[in-house]
Amino acid sequence: MSQSPDFSNLRIVLVNTSHPGNIGATARAMKNMGMSRLYLVQPKEFPSGVAVGRAASAVDVLDNAVICASLQDAIRDCGLVIGTSARSRSIPLKLVLPEQSAEHVYRALPANQAALVFGREDSGLTNEELQLCHLHVQIPASEQYSSLNLAAAVLLICYEVRRRFLRETEAESVRQEDYWDHELATGLQTEQFFEHLEKVLIRIEFHDPQNPRQLMQRMRRMFGRIRMDTMEMNIMRGILAHIEFHMDNPRRNSGDDKTG
Amino acid sequence: MSQSPDFSNLRIVLVNTSHPGNIGATARAMKNMGMSRLYLVQPKEFPSGVAVGRAASAVDVLDNAVICASLQDAIRDCGLVIGTSARSRSIPLKLVLPEQSAEHVYRALPANQAALVFGREDSGLTNEELQLCHLHVQIPASEQYSSLNLAAAVLLICYEVRRRFLRETEAESVRQEDYWDHELATGLQTEQFFEHLEKVLIRIEFHDPQNPRQLMQRMRRMFGRIRMDTMEMNIMRGILAHIEFHMDNPRRNSGDDKTG
Repeated sequence: MSQSPDFSNLRIVLVNTSHPGNIGATARAMKNMGMSRLYLVQPKEFPSGVAVGRAASAVDVLDNAVICASLQDAIRDCGLVIGTSARSRSIPLKLVLPEQSAEHVYRALPANQAALVFGREDSGLTNEELQLCHLHVQIPASEQYSSLNLAAAVLLICYEVRRRFLRETEAESVRQEDYWDHELATGLQTEQFFEHLEKVLIRIEFHDPQNPRQLMQRMRRMFGRIRMDTMEMNIMRGILAHIEFHMDNPRRNSGDDKTG
Repeated sequence: MSQSPDFSNLRIVLVNTSHPGNIGATARAMKNMGMSRLYLVQPKEFPSGVAVGRAASAVDVLDNAVICASLQDAIRDCGLVIGTSARSRSIPLKLVLPEQSAEHVYRALPANQAALVFGREDSGLTNEELQLCHLHVQIPASEQYSSLNLAAAVLLICYEVRRRFLRETEAESVRQEDYWDHELATGLQTEQFFEHLEKVLIRIEFHDPQNPRQLMQRMRRMFGRIRMDTMEMNIMRGILAHIEFHMDNPRRNSGDDKTG
């Protein structure tokens, strides 16, 4: 309670929110938890007097909200993107509990931008949006009624993140050191990788965009689980470039043993 | 999530609530957390259409709410009464964290009636009311803005109670294991994949075994983090085989090249 964790690298992203009251209540919940950076992807109604009313003393969070045209825009520079998911999908996602997502935020935050992403009131995030997320968190609500109000979901996830930071002010030294040697790849780098990967998979005739059989979704899910760092991303891009080079220069291949 | 803790001995008590919307939002939060017994001490406006609107699918909680003339009435049969407190008082109370209050509820509940008591939106519980409580819980909110919306406070306290009960019914973290759609790849399959990968990386002249620069270690560390399932392993092996095929059949590539 005396400490103020530094959440300046953390943003809360609301996608396509219908009710401005929920935006206001989210701002209040964020400020209660010590967070201030609100991103709104295509809000239905904003700015709004209703939002201001529900924000109470968190109007500053609304005033500083960043409006984005797409989720991609909102997370472009983020090394960690966590999406909330209410239900199972055709390709099941690995779901983590709120406290587990908080642990990820805790480890990533000093060196990376991180985003907590919340979907529409009625339908959540689309499959495409979920695939832009590295992790998917599910609130362990009652099976009888699992649909939380949007601001309530934001509050619970932010609360877990805050608790994690408050718990650890002392064991500061363990942090980040043993975590990783390179920065995490950003959302933009990740998108560029998937574009490059898809191009090469088409080129080697493994992937047919006319008959995609969920291949790219599976690739996204798989590589999404690892959260590559920048070094690993460079390696993967290098591998893809080498495959392309050898397909462009087939004589080198047939010589195989080495022509140089 | 398959478990439903038994909260039939637990009640949520709202004292002198001003805004019926907060009563409705409280009902929703309670039902989300699997709780159903709402007691209202002298609500300003109840029943109320606003409350019904905010309750969403938790109208049954409102319908079954018990109206009381005083806090004493509401907690008369309770063996454990926990009050929420936003700030320090003239006579300082011993404050516990939400997870500590949850532990008390967890221990008391099977044999006792227990109450979680929440005060007025603007002024909380009076000193007299606080003295009717055995324990006082404080949400570790930001010092900059510590005043939570009433239903938000109810949600957080109920969430901690629910977590405590879920933790005990079953090791929660095991839950995700059965959420996956394919078996994890075995150690042997993984080794075969790395052998195949190394062969292809040499073939495309990305990897030089004479000057390995930790490449394969990095690949192992990266793919090790993914813990591929059998389907993903098959996809990766398929990609490697396609690369080899195109290097063995360069004429196909050059033909491809023009169209692609």
